[in-house]
Amino acid sequence: MEEKVIIAVDAMGGDNAPFEIVKGAVEAVNESTEIVIKLCGKEKEIEEVLKQYTYDSERLEIVNCEEVIATDEHPVQAVRTKKNSSLVVSMNMVRKGEADALVSAGNSGAVLVGGQIIVGRLKGVERPPFAPLLPTTKGVSLLLDSGANVDARPSHLVQFAKIGSIYMENVVGVKNPRVAIVNIGAEEEKGNQLVKETMPLLKECTDINFIGSIEARDIPFGYADVIVCEAFVGNVILKLFEGVGSALISEVKKGMMTSLRSKIGALLVKPALKQTLKKFQTEEHGGAPLLGCKGLVVKTHGNSKATEVKNSILQCVQFKKQKINEKIQEHLA
Amino acid sequence: MEEKVIIAVDAMGGDNAPFEIVKGAVEAVNESTEIVIKLCGKEKEIEEVLKQYTYDSERLEIVNCEEVIATDEHPVQAVRTKKNSSLVVSMNMVRKGEADALVSAGNSGAVLVGGQIIVGRLKGVERPPFAPLLPTTKGVSLLLDSGANVDARPSHLVQFAKIGSIYMENVVGVKNPRVAIVNIGAEEEKGNQLVKETMPLLKECTDINFIGSIEARDIPFGYADVIVCEAFVGNVILKLFEGVGSALISEVKKGMMTSLRSKIGALLVKPALKQTLKKFQTEEHGGAPLLGCKGLVVKTHGNSKATEVKNSILQCVQFKKQKINEKIQEHLA
Repeated sequence: MEEKVIIAVDAMGGDNAPFEIVKGAVEAVNESTEIVIKLCGKEKEIEEVLKQYTYDSERLEIVNCEEVIATDEHPVQAVRTKKNSSLVVSMNMVRKGEADALVSAGNSGAVLVGGQIIVGRLKGVERPPFAPLLPTTKGVSLLLDSGANVDARPSHLVQFAKIGSIYMENVVGVKNPRVAIVNIGAEEEKGNQLVKETMPLLKECTDINFIGSIEARDIPFGYADVIVCEAFVGNVILKLFEGVGSALISEVKKGMMTSLRSKIGALLVKPALKQTLKKFQTEEHGGAPLLGCKGLVVKTHGNSKATEVKNSILQCVQFKKQKINEKIQEHLA
Repeated sequence: MEEKVIIAVDAMGGDNAPFEIVKGAVEAVNESTEIVIKLCGKEKEIEEVLKQYTYDSERLEIVNCEEVIATDEHPVQAVRTKKNSSLVVSMNMVRKGEADALVSAGNSGAVLVGGQIIVGRLKGVERPPFAPLLPTTKGVSLLLDSGANVDARPSHLVQFAKIGSIYMENVVGVKNPRVAIVNIGAEEEKGNQLVKETMPLLKECTDINFIGSIEARDIPFGYADVIVCEAFVGNVILKLFEGVGSALISEVKKGMMTSLRSKIGALLVKPALKQTLKKFQTEEHGGAPLLGCKGLVVKTHGNSKATEVKNSILQCVQFKKQKINEKIQEHLA
């Protein structure tokens, strides 16, 4: 019998908890027989949602926890004091090896702090980065760090480059992934202090395919597979990506409603367009793993719906099968 | 008789020089009788283009300069050695008061260096920022600094906030403009070192309408009128804005071509959509002024077409009429 991948899911985290989280967990269990899910949260509320669905109950169990960490709570304080919260319980399961991974749509800061303190860093990893996939016109690119640790040092960025390469090659399946550092111009002398100090270090790495600088303009066109930057910049990239995308889509919709002619046209283009635009939304590509922790910690958007939760759960399978953490450990040793 | 606004235009700068630059200059002269243009560049090449148009020749003259600064030249070196280049000649005209403003689509670094060294900073201005207008779903917002000086200090950001407020109020006409600092979360304790140090200083300013942090996601929705950040982050914002916009538009076009049905729909929505998408392109809103220099230095995109050149020229009129530099001087004194 094949080995199952056990995933702890924080059923109470995020704006749409527990309904969308539980729904996403059910969909994941129904989609892959390799998955076993432990839904952490208030038993009664979870049961209420589960009643509506059919699923293999042997692979989906509830772990009752009465506490919840809210989105606006102070992360360090919350993780320290709410030992019986759905998030902390999920994290402890990963720490003890009772789960391979955990998925949460809850308080980002708490996921970050808990990932580092409770789950723990892999040996040699200085600062685990958040690493979401960004949609591009050619496929997807991995962005690290999208917000875990601001004011990073050059050595951190070098680790991001290595960890990101391993992830893209083994989880996403991109051979010899192209690594680039976010910069404000292609010329050698451009950049801030951090970029200038990191550049020569990246050039020296023989185990990655470093292609130099990438300007933000070229990111959506997939000029690189692994995009490395400091967390403040990465967070701006991730959020502006989402913001410009949704603003433009809302403008396109408005634009189509301006005349009778365009309204009729809108009806005709709608199905084709929906497909295209869906591909270009960050939500379609699962959550952001906090790479470099023991086990796997995945943070999905606070406003995640079931599909994103499902995708975030499914991405844990490949991660375990491909032994990503063992590979990270090898490369950073 | 009303006073004319004299604008030196670097006819040789940018990917489409001199053709699109000269065309844009002609369009500006034809659109506003308040403008006098001095086209700096190779006389013969400029004349060749001018022959194709009709315009008031009393308000458009050529200043012959034989040298050109290329886009890939080292900025400091180029500005120092190419004294007879179209860019340096334009800058000297502003310095000597022979022109009120200059517009260039050429080497950004050279525009920046020349703006600071040749044209010179206004008294009290520490570091002039590039300040382009970004399109939003509600109108436009001013972004400073979009790339002039990386690794800024808190006092620089405070100046950007003040200068930006004056510009938005007087040139764009936004009353009591809302000022926000780019951050990676709305909570008080979020941010990198620079943001944490700048935040209390901005709160103390009584002459601006500071509303706190803005997340990148909210920028395209016009949550603030003046958006303040360090130049590396600002450059990433400006370029990603353009990149996501053009990637998404190309995907929308591709999406519309996937079936016969959607192709017919595309024909019907095209006119309405074109209008909407045009509004959301940064090129439609003129160039980026380098605010805080004596006179006015405006950098337009390297790939500017005539329309952007024209818009960049026209924005100089309001700048002079509203005595922006006098107001900046007053507020920073």
